[in-house]
Amino acid sequence: MINYPNGQPYKKEEKKRSSKKNKTEISISSANRGMSFENDINVSNDYYKERGICLISKRPTPINVVKVDYSKGAMITHAYFETQSTTDYNGVYKGKYIDFEAKNTKNKTSFPLNNITKHQIEHLKMVIYHEGIAFFIIQFESLDKVYLLDASYVIHFYEHGERKSIPLSCFEENGIEVERSYNPRLKYIDAIDKKYF
Amino acid sequence: MINYPNGQPYKKEEKKRSSKKNKTEISISSANRGMSFENDINVSNDYYKERGICLISKRPTPINVVKVDYSKGAMITHAYFETQSTTDYNGVYKGKYIDFEAKNTKNKTSFPLNNITKHQIEHLKMVIYHEGIAFFIIQFESLDKVYLLDASYVIHFYEHGERKSIPLSCFEENGIEVERSYNPRLKYIDAIDKKYF
Repeated sequence: MINYPNGQPYKKEEKKRSSKKNKTEISISSANRGMSFENDINVSNDYYKERGICLISKRPTPINVVKVDYSKGAMITHAYFETQSTTDYNGVYKGKYIDFEAKNTKNKTSFPLNNITKHQIEHLKMVIYHEGIAFFIIQFESLDKVYLLDASYVIHFYEHGERKSIPLSCFEENGIEVERSYNPRLKYIDAIDKKYF
Repeated sequence: MINYPNGQPYKKEEKKRSSKKNKTEISISSANRGMSFENDINVSNDYYKERGICLISKRPTPINVVKVDYSKGAMITHAYFETQSTTDYNGVYKGKYIDFEAKNTKNKTSFPLNNITKHQIEHLKMVIYHEGIAFFIIQFESLDKVYLLDASYVIHFYEHGERKSIPLSCFEENGIEVERSYNPRLKYIDAIDKKYF
Protein backbone atom coordinates (compact mmCIF):
# COMPACT_ATOMS: atom_id res chain seq x y z
CA MET A 1 0.00 0.00 0.00
CA ILE A 2 1.25 3.44 -0.88
CA ASN A 3 1.32 5.82 2.03
CA TYR A 4 0.94 9.55 2.03
CA PRO A 5 3.80 11.63 3.37
CA ASN A 6 1.81 12.07 6.57
CA GLY A 7 1.88 8.30 7.06
CA GLN A 8 -1.83 7.89 6.38
CA PRO A 9 -2.95 5.33 3.82
CA TYR A 10 -3.59 6.67 0.35
CA LYS A 11 -7.27 7.58 0.14
CA LYS A 12 -9.33 6.47 -2.82
CA GLU A 13 -11.25 9.74 -3.00
CA GLU A 14 -8.00 11.65 -3.42
CA LYS A 15 -6.87 9.25 -6.12
CA LYS A 16 -10.13 9.61 -7.98
CA ARG A 17 -10.00 13.38 -7.75
CA SER A 18 -6.51 13.67 -9.20
CA SER A 19 -7.34 11.20 -11.99
CA LYS A 20 -9.79 13.77 -13.34
CA LYS A 21 -6.70 15.62 -14.54
CA ASN A 22 -8.22 18.91 -13.63
CA LYS A 23 -5.18 21.20 -13.67
CA THR A 24 -6.19 23.42 -10.77
CA GLU A 25 -7.02 20.49 -8.56
CA ILE A 26 -3.78 18.69 -9.35
CA SER A 27 -1.72 21.74 -8.52
CA ILE A 28 -3.57 22.29 -5.26
CA SER A 29 -3.14 18.65 -4.37
CA SER A 30 0.59 18.87 -5.15
CA ALA A 31 0.92 22.04 -3.07
CA ASN A 32 -0.87 20.27 -0.23
CA ARG A 33 1.54 17.38 -0.36
CA GLY A 34 4.44 19.83 -0.24
CA MET A 35 2.76 21.58 2.68
CA SER A 36 2.23 18.24 4.35
CA PHE A 37 5.96 17.45 4.08
CA GLU A 38 6.82 20.86 5.54
CA ASN A 39 4.32 20.16 8.29
CA ASP A 40 5.99 16.80 8.98
CA ILE A 41 9.30 18.62 9.48
CA ASN A 42 7.67 21.25 11.70
CA VAL A 43 5.94 18.79 14.00
CA SER A 44 9.14 16.71 14.16
CA ASN A 45 10.94 19.90 15.26
CA ASP A 46 8.30 20.41 17.95
CA TYR A 47 8.77 16.82 19.10
CA TYR A 48 12.56 17.20 19.29
CA LYS A 49 12.26 20.56 21.05
CA GLU A 50 9.81 19.32 23.68
CA ARG A 51 12.03 16.34 24.47
CA GLY A 52 15.20 18.41 24.68
CA ILE A 53 16.83 16.59 21.75
CA CYS A 54 17.62 19.63 19.62
CA LEU A 55 16.41 23.16 19.05
CA ILE A 56 15.68 23.66 15.38
CA SER A 57 13.00 25.92 13.98
CA LYS A 58 11.64 27.32 10.77
CA ARG A 59 12.71 30.82 9.89
CA PRO A 60 9.73 33.11 9.34
CA THR A 61 9.08 34.00 5.70
CA PRO A 62 10.53 37.47 5.13
CA ILE A 63 7.83 39.98 4.27
CA ASN A 64 8.37 43.43 2.87
CA VAL A 65 5.89 45.65 4.71
CA VAL A 66 4.84 48.66 2.65
CA LYS A 67 1.97 50.09 4.66
CA VAL A 68 0.68 49.73 8.21
CA ASP A 69 -2.63 51.12 9.42
CA TYR A 70 -2.06 52.15 13.03
CA SER A 71 -5.69 53.21 13.46
CA LYS A 72 -6.52 49.50 13.22
CA GLY A 73 -4.03 48.25 15.83
CA ALA A 74 -0.95 48.04 13.59
CA MET A 75 -2.73 46.17 10.84
CA ILE A 76 -0.54 45.59 7.79
CA THR A 77 -2.56 46.61 4.73
CA HIS A 78 0.09 46.42 2.00
CA ALA A 79 3.00 43.98 1.94
CA TYR A 80 4.76 41.42 -0.24
CA PHE A 81 6.42 38.06 0.36
CA GLU A 82 10.17 38.20 -0.19
CA THR A 83 12.32 35.37 -1.46
CA GLN A 84 14.12 33.57 1.34
CA SER A 85 17.82 34.22 0.75
CA THR A 86 18.83 31.65 3.32
CA THR A 87 17.41 28.21 4.06
CA ASP A 88 14.16 27.44 5.82
CA TYR A 89 15.52 25.79 8.96
CA ASN A 90 18.32 26.37 11.41
CA GLY A 91 19.18 25.70 15.01
CA VAL A 92 21.44 23.85 17.41
CA TYR A 93 22.18 20.19 18.10
CA LYS A 94 24.95 19.10 20.49
CA GLY A 95 26.41 22.61 20.35
CA LYS A 96 26.79 22.50 16.57
CA TYR A 97 25.07 24.87 14.19
CA ILE A 98 22.54 23.08 11.98
CA ASP A 99 21.19 24.56 8.74
CA PHE A 100 18.99 22.88 6.17
CA GLU A 101 16.46 23.18 3.42
CA ALA A 102 13.58 20.74 3.00
CA LYS A 103 12.02 20.02 -0.39
CA ASN A 104 9.45 17.67 -1.82
CA THR A 105 9.60 16.32 -5.37
CA LYS A 106 7.17 14.27 -7.43
CA ASN A 107 10.04 13.22 -9.67
CA LYS A 108 11.05 9.53 -9.47
CA THR A 109 14.58 9.54 -10.84
CA SER A 110 16.14 12.83 -9.80
CA PHE A 111 15.75 15.95 -7.70
CA PRO A 112 15.42 19.04 -9.91
CA LEU A 113 17.39 22.06 -8.71
CA ASN A 114 15.16 24.73 -10.21
CA ASN A 115 13.60 25.43 -6.81
CA ILE A 116 16.98 26.16 -5.24
CA THR A 117 18.21 29.73 -5.51
CA LYS A 118 21.75 30.99 -6.04
CA HIS A 119 21.45 32.82 -2.68
CA GLN A 120 20.64 29.59 -0.88
CA ILE A 121 23.67 27.88 -2.44
CA GLU A 122 25.89 30.78 -1.38
CA HIS A 123 24.40 30.64 2.10
CA LEU A 124 25.07 26.91 2.44
CA LYS A 125 28.65 27.30 1.19
CA MET A 126 29.23 29.83 3.96
CA VAL A 127 27.68 27.51 6.56
CA ILE A 128 30.12 24.76 5.52
CA TYR A 129 33.02 27.25 5.53
CA HIS A 130 32.14 28.17 9.13
CA GLU A 131 32.04 24.46 10.05
CA GLY A 132 28.30 24.30 10.53
CA ILE A 133 26.31 21.22 9.50
CA ALA A 134 24.47 21.91 6.23
CA PHE A 135 22.20 19.54 4.35
CA PHE A 136 19.00 19.03 2.43
CA ILE A 137 16.08 16.81 3.40
CA ILE A 138 14.45 15.70 0.16
CA GLN A 139 11.21 13.80 -0.06
CA PHE A 140 10.73 11.70 -3.19
CA GLU A 141 6.99 11.66 -2.84
CA SER A 142 6.27 9.11 -5.59
CA LEU A 143 8.83 6.69 -4.13
CA ASP A 144 7.74 7.34 -0.55
CA LYS A 145 11.39 7.92 0.42
CA VAL A 146 13.07 10.74 2.31
CA TYR A 147 16.82 11.37 2.23
CA LEU A 148 19.22 13.62 4.10
CA LEU A 149 22.00 14.71 1.72
CA ASP A 150 24.98 16.82 2.74
CA ALA A 151 24.81 20.26 1.13
CA SER A 152 28.22 19.76 -0.53
CA TYR A 153 26.63 17.37 -3.07
CA VAL A 154 23.86 19.83 -3.85
CA ILE A 155 26.41 22.62 -4.28
CA HIS A 156 28.45 20.37 -6.59
CA PHE A 157 25.51 19.49 -8.83
CA TYR A 158 24.26 23.08 -8.80
CA GLU A 159 27.62 24.42 -9.96
CA HIS A 160 29.05 21.59 -12.05
CA GLY A 161 26.16 19.31 -12.96
CA GLU A 162 25.32 19.01 -16.65
CA ARG A 163 21.62 18.91 -16.00
CA LYS A 164 20.14 21.02 -13.23
CA SER A 165 19.19 17.99 -11.16
CA ILE A 166 20.64 15.43 -8.77
CA PRO A 167 20.12 11.79 -9.77
CA LEU A 168 18.38 9.52 -7.28
CA SER A 169 21.49 7.32 -7.28
CA CYS A 170 23.43 10.13 -5.59
CA PHE A 171 20.92 10.09 -2.74
CA GLU A 172 21.06 6.28 -2.54
CA GLU A 173 24.86 6.22 -2.47
CA ASN A 174 25.71 9.32 -0.42
CA GLY A 175 22.53 10.22 1.42
CA ILE A 176 21.09 8.84 4.62
CA GLU A 177 17.53 7.60 4.46
CA VAL A 178 15.28 9.40 6.93
CA GLU A 179 12.91 6.97 8.57
CA ARG A 180 9.34 7.81 9.39
CA SER A 181 7.59 7.00 12.61
CA TYR A 182 4.44 7.98 14.39
CA ASN A 183 6.35 10.48 16.53
CA PRO A 184 8.56 12.13 15.36
CA ARG A 185 7.15 11.83 11.87
CA LEU A 186 10.61 12.22 10.36
CA LYS A 187 13.48 10.84 12.42
CA TYR A 188 15.99 13.16 10.85
CA ILE A 189 18.12 13.49 14.01
CA ASP A 190 18.95 9.77 13.64
CA ALA A 191 20.15 10.55 10.12
CA ILE A 192 22.25 13.49 11.42
CA ASP A 193 23.80 11.19 14.05
CA LYS A 194 24.70 8.62 11.41
CA LYS A 195 26.21 11.18 9.07
CA TYR A 196 27.89 13.74 11.33
CA PHE A 197 28.42 12.40 14.86
CA MET B 1 31.92 64.72 23.18
CA ILE B 2 29.03 62.36 23.37
CA ASN B 3 28.59 60.22 20.32
CA TYR B 4 25.43 58.78 18.92
CA PRO B 5 25.15 55.00 18.63
CA ASN B 6 25.93 55.37 14.93
CA GLY B 7 29.27 56.98 15.81
CA GLN B 8 28.21 60.42 14.60
CA PRO B 9 28.67 63.39 16.92
CA TYR B 10 25.62 64.34 18.93
CA LYS B 11 23.74 66.97 16.95
CA LYS B 12 22.55 70.11 18.67
CA GLU B 13 19.28 70.19 16.74
CA GLU B 14 18.39 66.78 18.10
CA LYS B 15 19.21 67.87 21.63
CA LYS B 16 17.07 70.99 21.31
CA ARG B 17 14.20 69.03 19.89
CA SER B 18 14.10 66.51 22.69
CA SER B 19 14.32 69.28 25.29
CA LYS B 20 10.89 70.42 24.16
CA LYS B 21 9.57 67.38 25.99
CA ASN B 22 7.00 66.79 23.33
CA LYS B 23 5.97 63.20 24.00
CA THR B 24 5.51 62.13 20.41
CA GLU B 25 8.81 63.56 19.31
CA ILE B 26 10.68 62.00 22.22
CA SER B 27 9.23 58.61 21.51
CA ILE B 28 10.08 58.85 17.80
CA SER B 29 13.60 59.95 18.64
CA SER B 30 13.96 57.07 21.09
CA ALA B 31 12.62 54.60 18.54
CA ASN B 32 15.13 55.95 16.03
CA ARG B 33 18.03 55.43 18.40
CA GLY B 34 16.83 51.90 19.05
CA MET B 35 16.60 51.39 15.28
CA SER B 36 20.06 52.86 14.85
CA PHE B 37 21.49 50.33 17.32
CA GLU B 38 19.73 47.51 15.48
CA ASN B 39 21.16 48.90 12.29
CA ASP B 40 24.67 48.93 13.81
CA ILE B 41 24.28 45.22 14.57
CA ASN B 42 22.94 44.50 11.09
CA VAL B 43 25.76 46.27 9.23
CA SER B 44 28.30 44.64 11.56
CA ASN B 45 26.77 41.28 10.59
CA ASP B 46 27.15 42.21 6.92
CA TYR B 47 30.79 43.15 7.52
CA TYR B 48 31.52 39.86 9.29
CA LYS B 49 29.69 37.88 6.62
CA GLU B 50 31.50 39.52 3.70
CA ARG B 51 34.88 38.89 5.33
CA GLY B 52 34.09 35.27 6.15
CA ILE B 53 34.39 35.85 9.91
CA CYS B 54 30.99 34.50 10.92
CA LEU B 55 27.53 33.98 9.48
CA ILE B 56 24.97 35.61 11.73
CA SER B 57 21.75 37.18 10.56
CA LYS B 58 18.56 38.72 11.82
CA ARG B 59 15.52 36.51 11.85
CA PRO B 60 12.66 38.01 9.89
CA THR B 61 9.83 39.39 12.05
CA PRO B 62 7.09 36.77 12.06
CA ILE B 63 3.93 38.05 10.39
CA ASN B 64 0.52 36.45 10.58
CA VAL B 65 -0.88 36.76 7.05
CA VAL B 66 -4.68 36.90 7.04
CA LYS B 67 -5.47 37.84 3.44
CA VAL B 68 -3.58 37.80 0.14
CA ASP B 69 -4.86 39.40 -3.05
CA TYR B 70 -3.61 37.18 -5.88
CA SER B 71 -5.12 39.45 -8.50
CA LYS B 72 -2.47 41.99 -7.50
CA GLY B 73 0.57 39.67 -7.72
CA ALA B 74 0.28 38.07 -4.29
CA MET B 75 -0.12 41.34 -2.45
CA ILE B 76 -0.76 40.91 1.27
CA THR B 77 -3.72 43.11 2.17
CA HIS B 78 -4.39 42.03 5.75
CA ALA B 79 -1.75 40.86 8.21
CA TYR B 80 -0.40 41.41 11.70
CA PHE B 81 3.03 41.46 13.30
CA GLU B 82 3.52 38.56 15.69
CA THR B 83 5.65 38.60 18.81
CA GLN B 84 9.05 37.03 18.26
CA SER B 85 9.11 33.93 20.46
CA THR B 86 12.81 33.45 19.90
CA THR B 87 15.65 35.97 19.78
CA ASP B 88 16.41 38.36 16.94
CA TYR B 89 19.77 36.97 15.83
CA ASN B 90 21.31 33.57 15.26
CA GLY B 91 23.99 31.93 13.18
CA VAL B 92 27.33 30.16 13.20
CA TYR B 93 30.84 31.09 14.35
CA LYS B 94 33.68 28.55 14.38
CA GLY B 95 31.15 25.74 14.04
CA LYS B 96 29.29 26.80 17.18
CA TYR B 97 25.68 27.88 17.29
CA ILE B 98 25.31 31.56 18.24
CA ASP B 99 22.04 33.06 19.47
CA PHE B 100 21.45 36.52 20.85
CA GLU B 101 19.11 39.37 21.49
CA ALA B 102 20.14 43.02 21.13
CA LYS B 103 18.51 45.79 23.16
CA ASN B 104 18.99 49.48 23.68
CA THR B 105 18.21 51.23 26.97
CA LYS B 106 18.16 54.90 27.96
CA ASN B 107 18.50 53.87 31.59
CA LYS B 108 21.84 54.74 33.25
CA THR B 109 21.95 52.38 36.20
CA SER B 110 20.24 49.18 35.10
CA PHE B 111 18.78 47.27 32.17
CA PRO B 112 15.02 46.83 32.62
CA LEU B 113 13.72 43.38 31.71
CA ASN B 114 10.20 44.43 30.74
CA ASN B 115 11.07 44.15 27.05
CA ILE B 116 12.17 40.53 27.41
CA THR B 117 9.46 37.92 27.03
CA LYS B 118 9.03 34.65 28.90
CA HIS B 119 9.29 32.87 25.51
CA GLN B 120 12.67 34.43 24.82
CA ILE B 121 13.96 33.36 28.24
CA GLU B 122 12.72 29.80 27.61
CA HIS B 123 14.35 29.86 24.18
CA LEU B 124 17.72 30.98 25.58
CA LYS B 125 17.61 28.36 28.33
CA MET B 126 17.20 25.73 25.63
CA VAL B 127 20.09 27.17 23.61
CA ILE B 128 22.36 26.88 26.68
CA TYR B 129 21.06 23.35 27.36
CA HIS B 130 22.03 22.37 23.80
CA GLU B 131 25.50 23.88 24.32
CA GLY B 132 24.95 26.82 22.02
CA ILE B 133 26.39 30.26 22.82
CA ALA B 134 23.62 32.55 24.10
CA PHE B 135 23.96 36.16 25.14
CA PHE B 136 22.55 39.66 25.08
CA ILE B 137 24.14 42.74 23.55
CA ILE B 138 22.89 45.71 25.53
CA GLN B 139 23.51 49.30 24.62
CA PHE B 140 23.38 51.79 27.49
CA GLU B 141 22.67 54.71 25.23
CA SER B 142 23.08 57.45 27.83
CA LEU B 143 26.44 56.05 28.93
CA ASP B 144 27.58 55.35 25.37
CA LYS B 145 28.53 51.80 26.39
CA VAL B 146 27.69 48.44 24.86
CA TYR B 147 28.07 45.15 26.72
CA LEU B 148 27.85 41.51 25.82
CA LEU B 149 26.38 39.57 28.74
CA ASP B 150 25.97 35.79 28.82
CA ALA B 151 22.28 34.83 28.76
CA SER B 152 22.64 32.91 32.04
CA TYR B 153 22.81 36.23 33.96
CA VAL B 154 19.72 37.55 32.22
CA ILE B 155 17.87 34.31 32.96
CA HIS B 156 18.94 34.53 36.60
CA PHE B 157 17.72 38.12 37.05
CA TYR B 158 14.53 37.39 35.11
CA GLU B 159 13.66 34.45 37.32
CA HIS B 160 15.17 35.36 40.69
CA GLY B 161 15.79 39.11 40.66
CA GLU B 162 13.84 41.21 43.16
CA ARG B 163 13.36 44.02 40.68
CA LYS B 164 12.78 43.25 37.03
CA SER B 165 16.10 44.72 35.98
CA ILE B 166 19.81 43.94 35.81
CA PRO B 167 22.07 46.46 37.57
CA LEU B 168 24.82 48.09 35.51
CA SER B 169 27.38 46.63 37.94
CA CYS B 170 26.48 43.13 36.71
CA PHE B 171 27.45 44.19 33.18
CA GLU B 172 30.66 45.81 34.43
CA GLU B 173 31.67 42.75 36.43
CA ASN B 174 30.47 39.89 34.24
CA GLY B 175 29.96 41.37 30.81
CA ILE B 176 32.44 42.08 28.06
CA GLU B 177 32.48 45.61 26.72
CA VAL B 178 31.81 45.70 22.97
CA GLU B 179 34.07 48.21 21.27
CA ARG B 180 32.94 50.40 18.43
CA SER B 181 34.90 51.09 15.31
CA TYR B 182 34.27 52.52 11.89
CA ASN B 183 33.90 49.06 10.42
CA PRO B 184 32.51 46.89 11.92
CA ARG B 185 30.50 49.37 13.95
CA LEU B 186 30.23 46.92 16.84
CA LYS B 187 33.16 44.54 17.27
CA TYR B 188 31.06 41.95 19.03
CA ILE B 189 33.02 39.00 17.64
CA ASP B 190 36.03 40.23 19.67
CA ALA B 191 33.80 40.11 22.74
CA ILE B 192 32.65 36.56 21.83
CA ASP B 193 36.30 35.51 21.46
CA LYS B 194 37.18 36.92 24.90
CA LYS B 195 34.21 35.28 26.58
CA TYR B 196 33.78 31.94 24.85
CA PHE B 197 36.90 30.92 22.91
